[in-house]
Amino acid sequence: MNGSTQPPAEAPDFTITRHGECHVPSPMSSVRFVDDSERVLYPSTLDELKRLRANAADDPPAMEAAGPRQRIFFDPSAIACGIVTCGGICPGLNDVIRAIVLSLHHHYGVRKTYGFRFGFAGLVAGASHEPLHLTAELVNRIHELGGSMLGSSRGPQQPQAMVDRLQELGIAILFAIGGDGTLRGAHAIAEEAARRRLPISVIGVPKTIDNDVSFVQKTFGFETAVSEARRASYAANAEAEAATNGIGLVKLMGRDSGFIAAYSSLVDGHANFCLVPEVPFTLDRFLAELRLRLERRGHAVIVVAEGAGQDLMPRQAGRDASGNVSYGDIGVFLRDAIATYFREQQMAITLKYIDPSYAIRSVPTTAHDSAFCLLLGHNAVHAGMSGRTDMIVSFWNHHFTHVPIGVAVSKRKQIDPEGPLWSSVLASTRQPRQMI
Amino acid sequence: MNGSTQPPAEAPDFTITRHGECHVPSPMSSVRFVDDSERVLYPSTLDELKRLRANAADDPPAMEAAGPRQRIFFDPSAIACGIVTCGGICPGLNDVIRAIVLSLHHHYGVRKTYGFRFGFAGLVAGASHEPLHLTAELVNRIHELGGSMLGSSRGPQQPQAMVDRLQELGIAILFAIGGDGTLRGAHAIAEEAARRRLPISVIGVPKTIDNDVSFVQKTFGFETAVSEARRASYAANAEAEAATNGIGLVKLMGRDSGFIAAYSSLVDGHANFCLVPEVPFTLDRFLAELRLRLERRGHAVIVVAEGAGQDLMPRQAGRDASGNVSYGDIGVFLRDAIATYFREQQMAITLKYIDPSYAIRSVPTTAHDSAFCLLLGHNAVHAGMSGRTDMIVSFWNHHFTHVPIGVAVSKRKQIDPEGPLWSSVLASTRQPRQMI
Amino acid sequence: MNGSTQPPAEAPDFTITRHGECHVPSPMSSVRFVDDSERVLYPSTLDELKRLRANAADDPPAMEAAGPRQRIFFDPSAIACGIVTCGGICPGLNDVIRAIVLSLHHHYGVRKTYGFRFGFAGLVAGASHEPLHLTAELVNRIHELGGSMLGSSRGPQQPQAMVDRLQELGIAILFAIGGDGTLRGAHAIAEEAARRRLPISVIGVPKTIDNDVSFVQKTFGFETAVSEARRASYAANAEAEAATNGIGLVKLMGRDSGFIAAYSSLVDGHANFCLVPEVPFTLDRFLAELRLRLERRGHAVIVVAEGAGQDLMPRQAGRDASGNVSYGDIGVFLRDAIATYFREQQMAITLKYIDPSYAIRSVPTTAHDSAFCLLLGHNAVHAGMSGRTDMIVSFWNHHFTHVPIGVAVSKRKQIDPEGPLWSSVLASTRQPRQMI
Amino acid sequence: MNGSTQPPAEAPDFTITRHGECHVPSPMSSVRFVDDSERVLYPSTLDELKRLRANAADDPPAMEAAGPRQRIFFDPSAIACGIVTCGGICPGLNDVIRAIVLSLHHHYGVRKTYGFRFGFAGLVAGASHEPLHLTAELVNRIHELGGSMLGSSRGPQQPQAMVDRLQELGIAILFAIGGDGTLRGAHAIAEEAARRRLPISVIGVPKTIDNDVSFVQKTFGFETAVSEARRASYAANAEAEAATNGIGLVKLMGRDSGFIAAYSSLVDGHANFCLVPEVPFTLDRFLAELRLRLERRGHAVIVVAEGAGQDLMPRQAGRDASGNVSYGDIGVFLRDAIATYFREQQMAITLKYIDPSYAIRSVPTTAHDSAFCLLLGHNAVHAGMSGRTDMIVSFWNHHFTHVPIGVAVSKRKQIDPEGPLWSSVLASTRQPRQMI
Repeated sequence: MNGSTQPPAEAPDFTITRHGECHVPSPMSSVRFVDDSERVLYPSTLDELKRLRANAADDPPAMEAAGPRQRIFFDPSAIACGIVTCGGICPGLNDVIRAIVLSLHHHYGVRKTYGFRFGFAGLVAGASHEPLHLTAELVNRIHELGGSMLGSSRGPQQPQAMVDRLQELGIAILFAIGGDGTLRGAHAIAEEAARRRLPISVIGVPKTIDNDVSFVQKTFGFETAVSEARRASYAANAEAEAATNGIGLVKLMGRDSGFIAAYSSLVDGHANFCLVPEVPFTLDRFLAELRLRLERRGHAVIVVAEGAGQDLMPRQAGRDASGNVSYGDIGVFLRDAIATYFREQQMAITLKYIDPSYAIRSVPTTAHDSAFCLLLGHNAVHAGMSGRTDMIVSFWNHHFTHVPIGVAVSKRKQIDPEGPLWSSVLASTRQPRQMI
Repeated sequence: MNGSTQPPAEAPDFTITRHGECHVPSPMSSVRFVDDSERVLYPSTLDELKRLRANAADDPPAMEAAGPRQRIFFDPSAIACGIVTCGGICPGLNDVIRAIVLSLHHHYGVRKTYGFRFGFAGLVAGASHEPLHLTAELVNRIHELGGSMLGSSRGPQQPQAMVDRLQELGIAILFAIGGDGTLRGAHAIAEEAARRRLPISVIGVPKTIDNDVSFVQKTFGFETAVSEARRASYAANAEAEAATNGIGLVKLMGRDSGFIAAYSSLVDGHANFCLVPEVPFTLDRFLAELRLRLERRGHAVIVVAEGAGQDLMPRQAGRDASGNVSYGDIGVFLRDAIATYFREQQMAITLKYIDPSYAIRSVPTTAHDSAFCLLLGHNAVHAGMSGRTDMIVSFWNHHFTHVPIGVAVSKRKQIDPEGPLWSSVLASTRQPRQMI
Repeated sequence: MNGSTQPPAEAPDFTITRHGECHVPSPMSSVRFVDDSERVLYPSTLDELKRLRANAADDPPAMEAAGPRQRIFFDPSAIACGIVTCGGICPGLNDVIRAIVLSLHHHYGVRKTYGFRFGFAGLVAGASHEPLHLTAELVNRIHELGGSMLGSSRGPQQPQAMVDRLQELGIAILFAIGGDGTLRGAHAIAEEAARRRLPISVIGVPKTIDNDVSFVQKTFGFETAVSEARRASYAANAEAEAATNGIGLVKLMGRDSGFIAAYSSLVDGHANFCLVPEVPFTLDRFLAELRLRLERRGHAVIVVAEGAGQDLMPRQAGRDASGNVSYGDIGVFLRDAIATYFREQQMAITLKYIDPSYAIRSVPTTAHDSAFCLLLGHNAVHAGMSGRTDMIVSFWNHHFTHVPIGVAVSKRKQIDPEGPLWSSVLASTRQPRQMI
Repeated sequence: MNGSTQPPAEAPDFTITRHGECHVPSPMSSVRFVDDSERVLYPSTLDELKRLRANAADDPPAMEAAGPRQRIFFDPSAIACGIVTCGGICPGLNDVIRAIVLSLHHHYGVRKTYGFRFGFAGLVAGASHEPLHLTAELVNRIHELGGSMLGSSRGPQQPQAMVDRLQELGIAILFAIGGDGTLRGAHAIAEEAARRRLPISVIGVPKTIDNDVSFVQKTFGFETAVSEARRASYAANAEAEAATNGIGLVKLMGRDSGFIAAYSSLVDGHANFCLVPEVPFTLDRFLAELRLRLERRGHAVIVVAEGAGQDLMPRQAGRDASGNVSYGDIGVFLRDAIATYFREQQMAITLKYIDPSYAIRSVPTTAHDSAFCLLLGHNAVHAGMSGRTDMIVSFWNHHFTHVPIGVAVSKRKQIDPEGPLWSSVLASTRQPRQMI
């Protein structure tokens, strides 16, 4: 919606790894081929442009433009490809799988595409499920269904074992759709392949419903997630308005980045408080502000990201299968803290708590997200066929681009509390800038 | 969908109370007037018909047919009317409010309709909010919005105080939209009015998202609730299918009657287990069956009504503001019990728990429900104008009917475990008839 | 919604044809078996009950109750079954196909089910497409997709050729999903099979988006169609309200019966005129009423069924592939007539014409319709397995029932202009009862 | 989605007109104020950056950044504001109206905001409808409703008369929401006000469902339109796949620019032909390609923008009330041409034609569009309060910006047939680049 991440101190090196010269002519006709020299500007404002150049005459930092190349690295008729989806399910997984399969088939004439079952666990010898043969007919309408037709799982596998399996199946391009951990796994596969001097391309498609991958303006599924989260905040508002001193409390996804919560606050503009991991708050101050709001308006809507206010709760032990630290349940914590506070204040309230959780992850994509997934899949295929590897397909300044995996996973994208997105949220909720 | 409640041992007395002869001609033209003698059959099968008659030549039990009367009791130009909504919000509240207001205005020319704010609490002197004047323009598009434009609250008020207020405002017909407790409150108002010999009509519109009012085949909002609950079971299925030994667990509304859970099991037919208050089960047996299902098919979807399995948990103390006994959280209980069981069995599972809760109560109505609410509101107005009182508008055998409040609140409608609805659920889920 | 068809002068003979005694025990467990003697009352009011009996002591007319039988006619392990969908596409086709396949597979253990492609044309030797083998896995999620996975076509085939093909494939039960013409075709197949003394069951599932099959209270897809039509009338209302003298005109399906138009008028209650085939009107009178409405309220919404007002237009020549007489386009006719009239009257209007047409036929089912299709499919299988033939599965008085095909196609169900549905429409639109 | 318009030969002058120095401190707290020097880059690629600068050391062309200013021009407590919506209705009108009213009220404390009824016609003395007083309460939930609460109309009014009316009402800022014609009208008002030396700010909010305003990356309502258009192409595909030689033909909006058709082709990727005004084609070539497609795949989906292929039809006479040239109906023309062609070729086809037309214009916004409208409205208010005038709020390179009206209306934005959007469409449809 608008520039929302912390302004980059300096731009990273966006140079993409390639297997060598491209020499096979692309079988595609009619499309516009992208030249290898095309670049998408990294800065989008004049200030950024000036800050990121040593000299006014220098080219500003820029990403390689995605898209079909006139000459490609692999001979489509001679290779097999593979697709794997990892981590939690997310709207658009089936769209991306379908777009990759259809592009490989129709655009390049690749004859065999494997779909590995249940994440990286399906990409090693002895996996409990054999890979599927993904045909154009099989994937024709899967994008209308939520979930992932391949299944998914969390956790890594040995790169050696996975490259063994890729070699065994003759796979030249592996498309890995997943989050941070998955992309690190894909990077490890690319490194292992390089060590063995195998011309295997590994193309990542970043999947994070939280929209928290750096150097990626928007990840697939995010818009659908915000669209679906609207139901929860709609309900919270309806419940709050229907009661005297009604409070609607909604917990949304967002472990480290509050983008879903922030955007959801802007949809309909019903939220009066938006709490995100990037902006700390104290319970006392928040509760006092909530009380003020009720006294003034008689009802209140609160949207909280799951990673917000973790410092207010006892630290959790343990990690999940993906290696993520376990978080305390801020929704239940706030629900109880609010109830206790107003009981102590002898002020009668009606609190409704809504945690839509997994219901958001499994819906089919919205129209816009569907088109986005289609192009994402196409561009992943174009990148792979051109011999690029160890990269992800990104979307930046309204263009699809290439970003090295190492750069993309170097840090997490977060809301900049001094930037325009958060300012818009403050303007819409009219909550105080500081609740400390 | 099909006859689903326990077969009535004997039919109640459906005789409706009226203020006296109807003498004012209805201002409506063009409609078909319903004769006071028209009756809708209570039985719908030959077996019921035979069982409910003493003699073959007797008329079977039947309800009075709803609809506009050619002669009415009240002079529309001389009266004011009132509307109150009580209890939790439910899809269709705004539809019914609108239908009543528009019918009073357009069909009868009533000039003043009050909308009491925040339940019975707004129907006594000194209420914190004055009643709204409900005009045709004000309610024109409220049915497109979820919630209740009047607000709601739980809990009773003194009938004397409410009748005082009705007298003070010159209200001839009070429309009370709410559940069991609200209808009892409406009944008390009708009795108090009768005691004072006041010609005040009290017409109830039964509101129970659980569809658990006896002698009412379908309550408004129920179809919308099932429609919205589909999102949760859709997600549960997508999550379950995307994992190895994936389990999707959904908790739905249904304190004493499992209609929402049962119908949701039939929608899409994804559920493998449907647990309702009417059918007891033991944890051991259920977990063993769940294990069998996973071993056979690799994933499972469970739909549980909030009132199911209460005997498995420690008894809760306390009641809510409506006087309902507090229930243990069967969703969280099952989630934890399943996790513990499979950990002990050393079988890796992936469990996703979804509790859509309030998100279901606040959505606008589906098309079919919207039309249903429109006719419900019209028929409530027709009943009130005809001088009937102490009754609800029901829907039975495909017709709108009148049922005395005393009969409607005499017992709760539940799923008959021996009837066709539950049999259909068993056929669809293929769960065992007994899990004891 | 309420009794809406013309009151039956006399009830038909609902006796169902069967192949003989049922002797194989059903492999289903846990369900409630329906006894062959169970009957669903045909009348639903006391008046009907009295009118339809010669003597008070007689049983009233009643339909055979649908549902699983304890003993069945066919040995499930020894037979193959077939499914064919004919005529235009309709919401729920995939739901019904899926329900039949899953019931045959899971409930009875039938091992082979053929899906004939593109209607009756796929049911003869030399069809351009081979039948599909329908497995539980293949149909698992097809109900989430609109359309028909089997494809469809219009027009009949020789019964002899179709029975030849059924014999060749060893098909014991054929499920024919389609409209009037399809059911006549199914009847002809049943007769040809009977002539050859072949124990082939032919079970019809009535498919008519117009909801116009007699002795069937509700056909699948109808509720979804009304739900989808809401978009058109919503738009018509928004356009009309946004302009001075704005007119929104919506053409909906309904060749001979205006149920979709009538119900759509009740949804949201926005329509000011509802024009249906059952209620004739003159152009002069309609236009004069429209003018009155504009003068009073500044905007108007008109919903017209495609078969309304055919006498106002020049007669069309020809028939479509299903043998239906071609109709004039009443939507375009009215649009032009309204424009001409107000131009002559020198009254500036803004007219928006909306014809959603095929967009309504291809959507996936609503939740309620989905559950309805599931049970419809199950009951079709139960009927077929029990050896019944030449019948359809109906829904009557809230129960699934059996109706002979000959009875179902004997006449078309229409709105009764003197009945409660049309009265409700008049009350909602406030259009005159007569526009002649 | 990606850079889609023809590459600008040279950038226009983006300098914004202002009434003078800003001197009143903004009453907003907590937000981030935007400095007047902040600029958003006009180019987004390195090529554009280089082409648009005379010297490498020059600043590239850039737009003024939108957002709240620390010091403002108007004293909020002393002014009134006005809002007018013109032209056809479009998703988001109510969202934008609401956002403006709420921002004026909550952010600045403006006490009086007029809503002019039915377009510019309501902005002159003697208008048939008085302006509404827009309060925060009145607009609270209007964004949930389609249409425009103010109504709309087409056609201009005398600038003098409109400025008279603004003066009379003491209006300091006029927000004009509309298309090309409306913005020209707003420009004329600004000029007339300047001629009279009146400090009246005129802020345009570009409304074009076709997304065809230059220097505006995305207009409100466009995403919702694409989302809604999906229903039509979904239906077309379902119909086409369900028939042998099935053809689904969808006509979508797009008089001069085919963005809706192009994006709709990417959603789901079902379309096999996308026909837009920017890319000419001959009937012979198109029909021959369509035949090829049917022979290969048995069905085809065609999406056509209303302005495509106008040269193939007889020229239309006349203009509509907005002064737009009347177009021939390409949808009906193609439908008939296809039918004729295949009849002549003696090839049986089944053609379904879908024209969703107005049904798309009146739906409430999608979540993403809703948030976009909120920020658009806020930024319009910020611009007006800062004393800027004769400008529109634009969205460019992921930022809200200011663009002079004169620049925005200088030419229409169109799809670049050599750019990435059209290339993506060709890749998805696999239609030939040239059909001439």
